[in-house]
Amino acid sequence: MDSPALRIRRVGIDTWRENVAYLHRECPVVRAAGFQALSKVTVRANGMAIAAVLNVVDDEHLVQSCELGLSEDAFARLQVAEGHAAYVSHAEPAASIAALHRKIAGERLTRDDLHAIIRDVAQARYSKIELAAFVVATQQTGLDRDEVLHLSEAMIAVGRRLDWGSQVRGGPVVDKHCIGGVPGNRTSMLVVPIVTAHGMLCPKTSSRAITSPSGTADTMEVLAEVALPFERLAAIVRETNGCLAWGGTADLSPADDILISVERPLALDSPGQMIASILSKKIAAGSTHLVLDIPMGPTAKVRTMGEAQRLKKLFEFVAARLNLQLDALISDGSQPIGRGIGPVLEARDVMQVLHNDPEAPTDLRQKALMLAGRMIEFDPDVRGGDGWRIARDILESGRALAQMQAIIEAQGRRVHPPELGALVREVAATQAGRVRAIDNLRLARIAQLAGAPQVAGAGVDLLCKAGDVVQAGQPLYRIHAQYEADMQFAGDLAALDDGYRIGPADGPSEPRVAVA
Amino acid sequence: MDSPALRIRRVGIDTWRENVAYLHRECPVVRAAGFQALSKVTVRANGMAIAAVLNVVDDEHLVQSCELGLSEDAFARLQVAEGHAAYVSHAEPAASIAALHRKIAGERLTRDDLHAIIRDVAQARYSKIELAAFVVATQQTGLDRDEVLHLSEAMIAVGRRLDWGSQVRGGPVVDKHCIGGVPGNRTSMLVVPIVTAHGMLCPKTSSRAITSPSGTADTMEVLAEVALPFERLAAIVRETNGCLAWGGTADLSPADDILISVERPLALDSPGQMIASILSKKIAAGSTHLVLDIPMGPTAKVRTMGEAQRLKKLFEFVAARLNLQLDALISDGSQPIGRGIGPVLEARDVMQVLHNDPEAPTDLRQKALMLAGRMIEFDPDVRGGDGWRIARDILESGRALAQMQAIIEAQGRRVHPPELGALVREVAATQAGRVRAIDNLRLARIAQLAGAPQVAGAGVDLLCKAGDVVQAGQPLYRIHAQYEADMQFAGDLAALDDGYRIGPADGPSEPRVAVA
Repeated sequence: MDSPALRIRRVGIDTWRENVAYLHRECPVVRAAGFQALSKVTVRANGMAIAAVLNVVDDEHLVQSCELGLSEDAFARLQVAEGHAAYVSHAEPAASIAALHRKIAGERLTRDDLHAIIRDVAQARYSKIELAAFVVATQQTGLDRDEVLHLSEAMIAVGRRLDWGSQVRGGPVVDKHCIGGVPGNRTSMLVVPIVTAHGMLCPKTSSRAITSPSGTADTMEVLAEVALPFERLAAIVRETNGCLAWGGTADLSPADDILISVERPLALDSPGQMIASILSKKIAAGSTHLVLDIPMGPTAKVRTMGEAQRLKKLFEFVAARLNLQLDALISDGSQPIGRGIGPVLEARDVMQVLHNDPEAPTDLRQKALMLAGRMIEFDPDVRGGDGWRIARDILESGRALAQMQAIIEAQGRRVHPPELGALVREVAATQAGRVRAIDNLRLARIAQLAGAPQVAGAGVDLLCKAGDVVQAGQPLYRIHAQYEADMQFAGDLAALDDGYRIGPADGPSEPRVAVA
Repeated sequence: MDSPALRIRRVGIDTWRENVAYLHRECPVVRAAGFQALSKVTVRANGMAIAAVLNVVDDEHLVQSCELGLSEDAFARLQVAEGHAAYVSHAEPAASIAALHRKIAGERLTRDDLHAIIRDVAQARYSKIELAAFVVATQQTGLDRDEVLHLSEAMIAVGRRLDWGSQVRGGPVVDKHCIGGVPGNRTSMLVVPIVTAHGMLCPKTSSRAITSPSGTADTMEVLAEVALPFERLAAIVRETNGCLAWGGTADLSPADDILISVERPLALDSPGQMIASILSKKIAAGSTHLVLDIPMGPTAKVRTMGEAQRLKKLFEFVAARLNLQLDALISDGSQPIGRGIGPVLEARDVMQVLHNDPEAPTDLRQKALMLAGRMIEFDPDVRGGDGWRIARDILESGRALAQMQAIIEAQGRRVHPPELGALVREVAATQAGRVRAIDNLRLARIAQLAGAPQVAGAGVDLLCKAGDVVQAGQPLYRIHAQYEADMQFAGDLAALDDGYRIGPADGPSEPRVAVA
């Protein structure tokens, strides 16, 4: 039963991927229809309809009893002007809610179920509570490999999809991705200039930090604009063969964007959803070939070789059925990569490598060359085993640097790049010996407390890495911050446990994780 | 790091058991601290602190950039006046979130874990997203019996607890509860007058409808006030030995009240949470003895005898450890109880039974006498087997009716009770035969569409029950509604499937579910 007409009013509240409708408690519709707070309602106006969650309002300044308030999300989705007549009714639950309940009950979902769920999610028919239920239910009993495939397909189906066909004429569109968990691991900013200098197309979009002190998009933003509209991004790739943009605005995976809005506050990231999220975005970006980096180590996201292998096989199963050529590798995640942790410090490391600076961190350089080499071997004209050498030549010749400058110019060079945080504190070794491991989680947390990524110049600068011999009192790393209180928090945590594991200097070197 | 001082502003939005803080997008704190929509924040003012979820606001009329808006829930919990200085900082996740993640990963939670979670829930430290995660995680892999016990204890620990010791002097404080799922099953409104007329103390609190066309509180509200403050409720019980009140305002189980705020929109009700919810509220109400009714039938909440037995044993395990004497019984849930479904119709059935009206529904009367009899046998002075006869004598003598009138007067008699919906439509049998079963879910849904419980006079009045022989075209039930559109929806559903299962008139009677 539809309500009498109410007047639409835009309520300037950003409810972040949730449609909220605001009705006054004295509104006749609330009383007649028996609406309660958090009721799911359908709002109809001018031929448009959206689902929304109801918030009851007691203040006439927000909405009057004859008005229907809409949060920014809801107003944008309904696409009807303020003052227009609107009608509210009880919403039948989204059709896919029955499938959600079956998943909560531990059942396996079909292809149709997952497509229905993702369609409803993308159309903003799920409340935050329902999104959380889906994320937790698929995390807890997991998704089997067919479910992951169907989830990935469903996510692709509801988004836009880039097509580079006319540009590559059947050649590969390459990409790389790292599942994350290792601070400082900014290989994308090296790999993209190298492979695009080789002539390959690599339209790389990255995320901002979700739970880490910096994402590739945050670090790239130190150098250039990264929030690029869809059409601009395509033009840059046509011009330079590649880009290093933030994926969030590109509208490539709207369902994923909405799911992340509850995964982030819950700090959840299940294998099935991670795979669907990553692969759907790669397919949507038009990629045909992908190198996937799975760092493994005691403080990385993936902690055992068995877990890493299972994840690798699951990626391979889904990618094959999506017609995506995948080269997945398990890498050493036993310590941060490079020296800097935090946007400005990581950008410095990247530029040192591109400049062939003798001070450049060796591990970052080596890893980037390895990854770029494997991507270059996707080129049908390159012989197997030649990729690494080609990548190295491109880097050493300065062609990678020139290519990076071209991409920065195309995206828009940052005129006043952020500076390194002026407050500095050194953390020193409490004992002599050889550094055996560095705790990724601990160092990431210290960098976050120092202000990263919101304060781009905040973070941690590592002065020693695993394998180095240190003396008691020798500085292990420097914390950079902009605010005294941040430095205090970060310094306190470092004082509690500096994250360095130091063993005897002359003992056996601990086995490094082999690259599989 | 605390923000510069902001001015508290009350924002009249009822966010329903979730603390929401509103900050303007241009507020310096938002930019400096890197707050994002849905960030968890800590708000401090005048020595008080609360956790809240952040909504970013773009409208100066809602909050200005120097103000901190608080939703009604948040404002009430902080207990600091408008205009007072407040400080906002990033909230560390509630301490129990780590335990929540372990549950999502499928682990068993300890006593300490569950106490920590419920403490944080009761203190409104969980966002709706986190509450949904807890509810789904405990639903999906379930809670083992020790977890259910600890959850129950934890819920008791965070609420107020009534103590009737001085009044009963060691005698029993009795209660009854039905797990629900069978429409019309209003035995509490008969049981309470009977057992309190016997001299037992029965402080009965009930819920409003969550997913049904009427809860006991909705039906009692047709006759009397049910939303009674804590102290008033205690006074009524001292005066009349009993009450029939709504439990929601009594503050007996604040954590449960908050969990229900997400269970209801998700339509989730797991066995473990149901048991913890029910038993914690009984203990908090000061009950020492409980009769528990578990209706079982193909369209009831519990559908098989095995399921009913498992639930019964789990209730018995937890109750024993909470020192609650429990008499749990499995009853016939194969069709609605009584004739009326909906507040006004159900109240009519109850009053007919109390008046010993020959028209009174026999099944409702018999079931109420059986339950009251078992409660009366909690009386140490009553011989085993005598309860039913004592209950019948109290009912037939008119003492139960007099007691009901006293309770109605004490709670506050409804001066203008709602009337039966004026719109009436009869639904007739499409074939002749014997009624074999009546679908509880279907009849409940028809009554809901007709407007129950929001429209108290709406609902369904059953004219035939299982076992009756009917002719084609004979009315099976009447739908009552107040609004034409409601009647249309309800009538359409009934036309699709009237919910009656009619078999041959001379075939064998279907076995009725035995009362265990």
